[in-house]
Parts: sequence; structure tokens; C-alpha cells
Amino acid sequence: MKKSALQKARAAYQPKLPIVLTGAVKAVEGHATNSVADQEEIKKLFPNTYGLPELRFEKSTNTQPSKPVNVGVILSGGQAPGGHNVICGLFDGIKKIHRDSRLYGFLMGPGGFVDHNYMELTAPFIADYRNTGGFDIIGSGRTKLETKEQFDKGLEILKELNIKALVIIGGDDSNTNAAVLAEYYKSINAGVQVIGCPKTIDGDLKNDVIETSFGFDTATKVYSEVIGNIQRDCNSAKKYYHFIKLMGRSASHIALECALQTQPNICIISEEVEANDMTLAQIVDQIAGVVAARAEKGMNFGTVLIPEGLIEFIPAVKRLIAELNDLLAKNEAEFAALAPADQRGYILAHLSKENAAVYESLPEGVARQLSLDRDPHGNVQVSLIETEKLLSEMVAKRLDEMKAAGQFKGTFKSLHHFFGYEGRCADPSNFDADYCYALGFNASCLIRAGVTGYMSSVRNLTKPSVQWIAGGIPVTMMMNMERRHGEMKPVIQKALVRLDGAPFQKFAAKRDEWALNTCYVYPGPIQYFGPAEVCDQPTMTLKYEHQGK
Amino acid sequence: MKKSALQKARAAYQPKLPIVLTGAVKAVEGHATNSVADQEEIKKLFPNTYGLPELRFEKSTNTQPSKPVNVGVILSGGQAPGGHNVICGLFDGIKKIHRDSRLYGFLMGPGGFVDHNYMELTAPFIADYRNTGGFDIIGSGRTKLETKEQFDKGLEILKELNIKALVIIGGDDSNTNAAVLAEYYKSINAGVQVIGCPKTIDGDLKNDVIETSFGFDTATKVYSEVIGNIQRDCNSAKKYYHFIKLMGRSASHIALECALQTQPNICIISEEVEANDMTLAQIVDQIAGVVAARAEKGMNFGTVLIPEGLIEFIPAVKRLIAELNDLLAKNEAEFAALAPADQRGYILAHLSKENAAVYESLPEGVARQLSLDRDPHGNVQVSLIETEKLLSEMVAKRLDEMKAAGQFKGTFKSLHHFFGYEGRCADPSNFDADYCYALGFNASCLIRAGVTGYMSSVRNLTKPSVQWIAGGIPVTMMMNMERRHGEMKPVIQKALVRLDGAPFQKFAAKRDEWALNTCYVYPGPIQYFGPAEVCDQPTMTLKYEHQGK
Repeated sequence: MKKSALQKARAAYQPKLPIVLTGAVKAVEGHATNSVADQEEIKKLFPNTYGLPELRFEKSTNTQPSKPVNVGVILSGGQAPGGHNVICGLFDGIKKIHRDSRLYGFLMGPGGFVDHNYMELTAPFIADYRNTGGFDIIGSGRTKLETKEQFDKGLEILKELNIKALVIIGGDDSNTNAAVLAEYYKSINAGVQVIGCPKTIDGDLKNDVIETSFGFDTATKVYSEVIGNIQRDCNSAKKYYHFIKLMGRSASHIALECALQTQPNICIISEEVEANDMTLAQIVDQIAGVVAARAEKGMNFGTVLIPEGLIEFIPAVKRLIAELNDLLAKNEAEFAALAPADQRGYILAHLSKENAAVYESLPEGVARQLSLDRDPHGNVQVSLIETEKLLSEMVAKRLDEMKAAGQFKGTFKSLHHFFGYEGRCADPSNFDADYCYALGFNASCLIRAGVTGYMSSVRNLTKPSVQWIAGGIPVTMMMNMERRHGEMKPVIQKALVRLDGAPFQKFAAKRDEWALNTCYVYPGPIQYFGPAEVCDQPTMTLKYEHQGK
Repeated sequence: MKKSALQKARAAYQPKLPIVLTGAVKAVEGHATNSVADQEEIKKLFPNTYGLPELRFEKSTNTQPSKPVNVGVILSGGQAPGGHNVICGLFDGIKKIHRDSRLYGFLMGPGGFVDHNYMELTAPFIADYRNTGGFDIIGSGRTKLETKEQFDKGLEILKELNIKALVIIGGDDSNTNAAVLAEYYKSINAGVQVIGCPKTIDGDLKNDVIETSFGFDTATKVYSEVIGNIQRDCNSAKKYYHFIKLMGRSASHIALECALQTQPNICIISEEVEANDMTLAQIVDQIAGVVAARAEKGMNFGTVLIPEGLIEFIPAVKRLIAELNDLLAKNEAEFAALAPADQRGYILAHLSKENAAVYESLPEGVARQLSLDRDPHGNVQVSLIETEKLLSEMVAKRLDEMKAAGQFKGTFKSLHHFFGYEGRCADPSNFDADYCYALGFNASCLIRAGVTGYMSSVRNLTKPSVQWIAGGIPVTMMMNMERRHGEMKPVIQKALVRLDGAPFQKFAAKRDEWALNTCYVYPGPIQYFGPAEVCDQPTMTLKYEHQGK
């Protein structure tokens, strides 16, 4: 592996642990917990792991030696900066428990666990991955750990390797599955603890006890860097509107955080669109209105941030897609036999009046995509829709009408960007490097404490890392019942952007000023070696959320 | 202007000047110069500014005071990181000549000069822009300074403001025009010097005496950062081919530099495609061959870098476009009257056999784009073609054929990226911050030396900046005659990637290894405050070019 100069310099960085984890610790139990909702049902589904107490680690004077422990680790789902440091922290933690402890990594995600593909992670191997981005140390994958067969198959390899604890690094779904696995192993007395770690750049795995998921900090900083650069270009050339789509289908935390960091002219927040039952036409009107108002002031340029999942949050589009899925599934053969030129008319004739109007308002390419590109289950593939182009095309059309009506006197030229893969594997910021290392190290403490069904928890994150609070949260505490694929399931509640939360409120208070003026901020690239106010700041989201407390 | 933490910290950075420029200097003349080609014609066109000597500044003991000088400055063409520092260096330089010197910025490019839109740049105003990216200090524009009317109109405002020297910061075309303007002002004894500064992220304004254009360093580092991040993602998920298009229509320096920094699986170099008269099908075969060979080794993922201008370098496509332009111009009405479904057939029937075959090989969307989207002059808009998607689509088709023939046993899923605007206005690297400041400061020395028709030259750039050599190069020295819009014109010779040059040779020696293995390097974001080996490295292109000397 040829290393870049930065990688070499960063390898020497020693992540800062919470002070409490630097010596011997004891687990102090808090009150017994309840799930956030549906307590009776969740309790019934998790008879062995429901109602456990929160744990908090405190300094201990007990330094009696421990026995070695073998641990397995899985990276699950999409990449997030800092995953390697979780593994490094875990490794250092179990080596501190006993130098003969061993760490096994399952390869390419949960699939490696089920199929017994693994490798032992040794000190020299680990050394190459300290403070680096990516999940390439053992790879990741999207296999879902859900069935008894998978759990039993995985248990075989755990027994073979004498693994007593499994750490699953993943998002809300993966941690939900970790909790189900913990419950199962407990119920059969398998003798294997299961610990989760909160990962996702989307920032939607958080709650009262998990302040943020790792990777969100770094990814939003990378996106803000390039958005800032684009805004500086925009403000230099003064002739383009940049429509910038940002990864994150389920929630708009990324778009909101980037907006707080860069102060674009417009940022759409999906949760607000849904709450206000906004139509696509209203969103288009809103953007076109800002373009026209800026043109009045002589500014024919601007930036628009769009969350990737927007289209699925627009109630009218959701209803259209539902009816389309239904219509095309029921009449598959008939529809397939039509000449391409007749398909549009067919769809319009068969849709309800309301949905036909929405369908008709869409640009032709998007409408075609909605009716043709379906996944193996026959569903419209919403993720293929280039929302940034869809919006700019509709805005252009709207502005043409406004121009004809004398309501727009400027010019409108658009450019498009989509940022996602650019940030998921970036080298972790100091924050994520420290946070992840602490999460992993803390997981080793939970293992030593003998618990299962817990998520590694490190809190007080807006304070310097030495002051962070470490402990464990029973995963069942974060759960409620939700409908998934037609069935009610116990799942970790996803954290959407709260419209009454401080981050959104700060944005809402400023956005009109940002729209009609040019208030761009240029954050620049993540710095690792400079002054603390440049290198060691958490996200604005976290800052505002903590200010509110 | 709300500043980011990094901006505030960077404002304090004092760019390092070449040691020779830190005290009084004298201009030492070298030999008289000749243009790189077409000497007689260029000499005839530049009777007053041809054959001037190269200048080199040396320390002087003469510290006698000078009179104040008023200077104008223009940012011309696309943005490049460091433009603000050229202006800061120029400002500090003329203030060193005399504290009553004044600097005027013409707004939004050469258009501001012709239309008399300007502002005085004062010390507190300048202070906000030190070491920042963007051209927003005075804006830029693409108006071409070419006509006597423009020159005379501009002279009016120069006279009004008592401006004795004009500094034009631009690429090869803008510096060509600067030379023409210098010649004209000299010929009429206007009493105004004209000095150029070599700007362009594309890196194609360089030669034996101008080692690199500013902005290339920073822009390629930003692109390499995100390419590295994508590669880390690619190597973690192991399931996608990322097709990454990079800005730069005229030359492939950006793609080559990024390849040297990140070691992708494939990087296409337009100059090589042209030199080898490669067809689109051959490029597709080459990529598909690598995909198949990697699949044999179990790797169904990879990265492909593509220079933006590729399509215009493919001789067969160039010939097709030329015939299409001709055909559609001659038969405009007839073609426009056709039903869309008949257009393809019409074109195929009217093209020569060779060009028809190329047209037929193109994916439908691209073929349609070629025939429909024409600019106001009736020409095909090649820049609209999404080359990254064109290639991945054709590769997918080729792989399907190979699969049917048993020559490909893997999977192929592609994702697309285009990076350009992300890097043009980034905060300048230490290299570009220093280089630009030196170029601007050096321009003030050329002004004091009383010369005109010179380009600011700072050399020895792979050495620490204090050892850099400063001077001036007569612009005519870089010129030859080229056909532009049907006429022979004197222009600065564009620097394409040299296939016999060290940077390309280094790449060519390694690319097979990079193709069949996974040798990705992850450069990470530009650092400003860390160790010198991280913060103060010039481009690999520059290093290899100097090693060869």
C-alpha cells in the first residue's frame, strides 16, 4: 500500500480518549429503561434484553487482571469516515484487557459472518489503518442479519474461534438486527455478547442518549468544502445557479448541516416539505421566486441544496408513485405491449385525476423514468431520479412563464452536482477520529462488563474529548414498532430533522436573508494540524442541539 | 462577509517571497528572444515588442525612492485558485514602490475595462482576500480584448485614472491579447505598460520559461482529494466502477496529474488518443478489457479518469462532427421538417460511410445530442456531451457482448462524477498562495522596470519558495501562428501533454500495474498548517518535469 504524505503524517495521531477510559473502569448502572414507544410489544419480543439499565463508566481502583477475550467485528452497510478507528479502539481496548486477546474481522459485511469469511486483525495490520477513512480494512456489505439460520450459522464460526463478543458497526437497521441477535444468543445461552456502534453519515441514528452517529461530522465537512468552493466560483462568475444534491435518502440532516456551514441561497428540507404537504409545484415556485427576486437585485446566480430523498417526501409524488406501482403491476403485459409513444397517454388515462395532474407536470424524461425503470419487485426506482435536474428543469419552465408575464427579468442558467461518494470514505476529522476510537475502546469496556444488547455510547460531545462521558445504552430503549414490508417490526426509531429543533430553527431564521443576499461562507478543507478552532470543531447541528439543552 | 474559521486563520499567512524580491532589485537583461515558431510573421505583427530580452531580477544596492504609480488589474476567463494573491502581491509591490501608488480593479473581467467599470482596491479591502480562493474580489469575465475600439475605449479610463500599467491575469488567449494590447499601446505611445500573469487550472499555459500556470496545483489537489475518497469507497464496497470526468477541454494535464497522485485503474489521456488515431471503439475496448481482466481476479470495481476534452481529440469523432456540422448547416430546413423518429435515418443516409459507422456506434442519447443541440453558429455543442456516461454505456454494451462470448465473467455497475467547479475557487495551497503572491509582486517590479509586453515569470518552483527566480518573459517569445476561426493569428502556443515528457512516461510505465491491481493512493485534503512534506509539495507533474532536467 503506497501511502500519501498526509496518511503517513496522520498515522502518528493518537486519538484522544475520554479521561475516564484511560484507566481502570467500573460500570455504574442507571435506572432500568423502557423503549421510546410500544413498550409492551417490544418487551414481549425481547424478554431477555428488555429493560436493562443505562451504563456509565467511572474510574475504578480495581486493577485486577482479566482473562483474554476473543472478539469479532463487522462493518455493516454504507461507508462512513472513522470506521477504521472504531476497530483500532476496539483492538487497543481488548489488548488492554489482556495482551492475548484476539480480534477477528468478518469480511465484506454481515455476509462474511454468515459465510465464515474472516481474518485475524493483528497489530501491524491494524497500524496501516489508524486514522484513515474507508472500510477497506475488512470491507463492508449490505447483507441483512435477520434470520435464525444466519444467527446459527454465524454462531458456528464464533464457537470455532472462541469468540465471546461480536461488535456490529452499523446504522439503525444494523443495530436493530444486532439487538435481535443479542436477544437470540441470550435466549439460547450461546455465551456471546453483541454490542452495536452507531454509524452513518446520514446523521439519522441519534436520540436522547446517542448524540450523533459517527461519520456525519467528516462527511458534511467534505461536502461543505466543495459546496463552499462552488459558491465562491458562483460568486466570481455570477452567471450560474448550482443545483447541488446531497446524499441521504431518509433524512435531511446532511443538507441542513451543510446549509448551516455554507449559507446557500436555498436549501430544501424534506421533513418540512412533508410536514407542510408541499407539492412539487410549490417547491418549484419557491425556488423560482428566489431566482426572480435575486434577478431584481441584479444577481443572476445562486446555489440550491437538495436532499437526495426529497422526492419521496413530497406527499403528492408519493401518492403518484404508489398508484403507478399499483397500475403498472396490475397491467404489466398490456403496458409492455404499447408503443413507447402511447405509454404516456395510457398512464394519464388510467391514473386518478389528482395523480394524473402531477404526472403531467413532470418533465418528460422523469415521467418516462417513473413508468419504465422499475426494480425487480416492479417498484419505481426513485433513487434513479436526478432530482437536481428535475427541479432546475421545472424552475426554468416556470421562469419562462414568469418572464412572459413580466415577473422575471433576469437570466437563468443551471449546473448540477451530486455529492455522496466524495465524503463517505474521507479521512476522519479529528472529531470523528477521536469519537470513533472512543466508541471502539468503549465497546471493549462493555465487553469486559459482560453485557449484551448494548450500543456503545460516548456523550458530551461538544466538550473537549477528554471530558466525554462513556457508557452503554440498551438498544431496546431506542426502539418502537414500525411497518416494514407490510409487517410490524421492532426497529430503532429513525431520527428525522425536527422542525422544532435548534438546528432547523437557526436555519429558518436566517434563510430569507441568505436567499436575497449573498452570504456564502467558505469552510475550506478539513484541517488536522492547525489551531483548535479550525481543526477541532463539532458540527453546527451538534453545537445548536447542545446549546438548546 | 462572514468568514469561516479556516479563512480567519489563513488570513494571517504571509506568503513567502523569493529572497531576491525582498529588497531592492535591478532587472538584468538576457539575450534577445525569438518566438517559438513563425518568427518572421510574428516579428512583423509586433514591430515594437518583438525580440525583447528575457529579464531576471537581481539584488540591487540602489534604493533610491521612486514616484507613485497607478496600476489597473483585470481577471480574465475562468477562475483559478490564487488569483486574489496575485492582486495582493501586486498591491504590496506597488505600495513598496511608493505608498501613494494606487491599484484599480476592473470589474467582471475585460468587459469592465472596456465599459469603465472599476473600483479602487484599498488596503482594508484587500485584507479580506489574502490567501483566499475565488475571483470574487473584482469578478472575472470572458469578454475578449481584441479590437482597436476596445483598446481605445480602455485607454480613456486609463488616462482618466492616470494608470501607467495594466496587469492582465489570464490564460493563453488572454495573455495573447495582452501582448497585442501592449504592442498597440506602444505603437501609439500611449504611455501604458501591459504585463501578463499566467493563470489556468488546466495547466496548458507553460513552456521552457513559464514552469506552470497558477491554480493548477490547488485544483488538481482538490480533485485528487475527492478522487482518493471515491477510490477508498470503491475499494471498500468493491462493487462499482466510478467514471470520473475532469475539467480541462484543451489538454489532459489535470487528468494526468490526478492519475499520478491517486493511481486509478484507468486514465485516458486525450493527447495519446489523438497521436495514436484511436477510435472511440478502441477506447471502449481498452476499458472493457481492463474490467474483464480485473473480474478474472475477482475485482468487479475500479476507477476511470476521463479528461473533459476527450471526445474532441478522437480523430474519427472529430471528422464525424465536422461532416455533421456541414450537413446540418446545408440542409437545415429539410432536417428541421423531419419527424424526430426520422432524423437518425436521414443523418445515416447522408453521411459518408466511415462517419455513418461512427454515428451508428454511439448510444442513442449522444447521437441525438450531436444532431440536435447546436450552438448559435449551428455547430454541435461537444461540451454538452456527458463523456463519462457515453463511455460507461458503451463499455457496458461491449461487456455484454464479451459475456455472451464467454470473455467476461464478472459484473459491471457504474457511477459517474464530474469535477471542475469544485476546484477552481478553492483556497490556494501554500504553493499557489506563494506562487501567486510572487507573480503579482514580481509584476510590480516589471512595472518599475518600465517594460511592456512581458509576462511575470517566477521559476525554480520545485525548490523552496525563497530560492525561486523572478523575472519577465516577452510574451511574443511564446507565440506561433495558428488558424483561429479561419484566420491565421499570432497566439501563445498551448502546452499539451507531451507523450515523451517525464510525467506521461512515469504514468505509462505504471498504468498496467495500476489497471490489474488496486494501487489506489489517498491524498486527502489540502493541509495548510502541518509538516512541510504534507503542506508544501508542488505537483507531481512539476517534480517529474524538473527531475528530467
